[in-house]
Amino acid sequence: MFSDNSHQTIHALGEVELITAIGKWLGPVSPPSPTGMGDDCAVMDTSNIGRQLFTTDSVSYGRHFDNSVPPSAAGAKLIKRNLSDIAAMGGHPGPALLNLLCAPNLRTDWLQDFMSGIRQTCQNYQVSIVGGDIGTLPAGQFTAALSLTGQMHVAPLLRSGAEIGDAIYVTGTLGGSIYQKHYNFTPRLTEGQWLARSNYCSSMMDITDGIAKDLNALLPQGSAAHIYLPSLPLSLDAHRHAQKTGETALKHAFCDGEDYELLITIKSEAQLSKLESEWNARFPLTPLTKIGVIATRQNDALYLDASTKEALPWVKGFEHLV
Amino acid sequence: MFSDNSHQTIHALGEVELITAIGKWLGPVSPPSPTGMGDDCAVMDTSNIGRQLFTTDSVSYGRHFDNSVPPSAAGAKLIKRNLSDIAAMGGHPGPALLNLLCAPNLRTDWLQDFMSGIRQTCQNYQVSIVGGDIGTLPAGQFTAALSLTGQMHVAPLLRSGAEIGDAIYVTGTLGGSIYQKHYNFTPRLTEGQWLARSNYCSSMMDITDGIAKDLNALLPQGSAAHIYLPSLPLSLDAHRHAQKTGETALKHAFCDGEDYELLITIKSEAQLSKLESEWNARFPLTPLTKIGVIATRQNDALYLDASTKEALPWVKGFEHLV
Repeated sequence: MFSDNSHQTIHALGEVELITAIGKWLGPVSPPSPTGMGDDCAVMDTSNIGRQLFTTDSVSYGRHFDNSVPPSAAGAKLIKRNLSDIAAMGGHPGPALLNLLCAPNLRTDWLQDFMSGIRQTCQNYQVSIVGGDIGTLPAGQFTAALSLTGQMHVAPLLRSGAEIGDAIYVTGTLGGSIYQKHYNFTPRLTEGQWLARSNYCSSMMDITDGIAKDLNALLPQGSAAHIYLPSLPLSLDAHRHAQKTGETALKHAFCDGEDYELLITIKSEAQLSKLESEWNARFPLTPLTKIGVIATRQNDALYLDASTKEALPWVKGFEHLV
Repeated sequence: MFSDNSHQTIHALGEVELITAIGKWLGPVSPPSPTGMGDDCAVMDTSNIGRQLFTTDSVSYGRHFDNSVPPSAAGAKLIKRNLSDIAAMGGHPGPALLNLLCAPNLRTDWLQDFMSGIRQTCQNYQVSIVGGDIGTLPAGQFTAALSLTGQMHVAPLLRSGAEIGDAIYVTGTLGGSIYQKHYNFTPRLTEGQWLARSNYCSSMMDITDGIAKDLNALLPQGSAAHIYLPSLPLSLDAHRHAQKTGETALKHAFCDGEDYELLITIKSEAQLSKLESEWNARFPLTPLTKIGVIATRQNDALYLDASTKEALPWVKGFEHLV
């Protein structure tokens, strides 16, 4: 993705031509100024938006993708990471800003492929890139950050809101995302929107650092999660990864990051069978699995095996800043 | 700003504690979730905003600031760069998202000082930091990006809109920003808002890469700018820098980047004397200088000396990606 032949790099192109090229590469997802790129700010009509969502997430070469990931898939991942945050509120995606931090020796054709993934994903989800910024990093480095807006048609599903007695559910399967799912996932937008419209949920978030780290954010003060370990929806890649690492697939499902599934708590008064049958009718291809319940905390343990009531040994998910 | 003693670094703190610390450092400019940090997205009430502005800009260690710049001033610069874009539309600043890309060996006390500059500047301009993201860079590196929203109370002043015959004005003085002004500037928010409310302007932008590069963006098709060279408002630092570089102060005023002044075109039918006297009454401390006029283009030259009609040799401002 980097080159010593400067003719192949963005350095040869220069900033002005690069911005023009990016506009072309983005095509229909880059609206004309002042709605889009080309002025000091993008101007958006928000007169019909009551509540706006606002989120940001980035991908860095060497951290969120490597040379085994096609550049277009890395670009798609940037958009989908942010879409997953919109999904986790139950929102609908809107306009976005793109920050590119590139080494001057980044290959122009690599960046074009990266942008083609952004374009395709933006088209799929009706996101437009309305502005951005280009900065430089030392040779061999690349980071892209996106700031995405969204709209709520109903009240957003927050992380706070769960109560003792609520059931804990997850969508999809968990663990081993390192093989492909970390970029080859579908953000649960339709599912999140459906859950926000329905009256079942007390709280919701997306799983980015593993349940071990993320579930804590949904637990109310003085509570602990009792987990039905045999029910955890293990992915095939969790099993595959376990064979390689010598750990259990269960641990991978609980601690691996980047599942981009929804973690949901369901109000204790809800009819779980009704929820599950409605879900299965609406999303027959997406598993929704009850993995536990929120109970009063008895001791230090945050997560317990629901059958033995013993503390689970996994309290750490993916740790950043290492 | 970096340390080999890991106890002093953000690596020792870890991500969860770092996010908590950032919330504390930001204090009152970090509103509680869901308006602010702590959920998958920030939720903003936009029901009273007709037109929203959206912009992003970053600062990188080694490019936009170095060790001679106090960390709090570097943090302030990040906010002010973005405020300058809001000013260039005539807008009022709103909530923002902060992306921090830090080496794990970044000193925690340095980051705290950087954030104190963000906090102070956000308080001064009533900006709140409602969310963000933390990513990692290799040892010795630091980049921060901000995505800032804004609101328009009147129609935004775009870059397009100038016509042949319009006069060209700049605020403040130009050149030599490398000494201090590149971080020690005041974004021209009040001035931009006043200009957007008044009926004098046909277009506006802020000068970030030097007039030589930026003015081009305001010139309509088939036009050229005739510049009154003796009128260019040279800063003291433009003179100071010229003594060091051996170039003319005029060239520094025309080509240096990071002035963060407003570049304005005034409608040909406007009474310039009325504009100037109103300006001086409203902004007695901020010079507003007529530096040229937009005329029909006769040849390749984009910028001409208004008295000799000769092409100016400076057509390049600050070049990125080098």
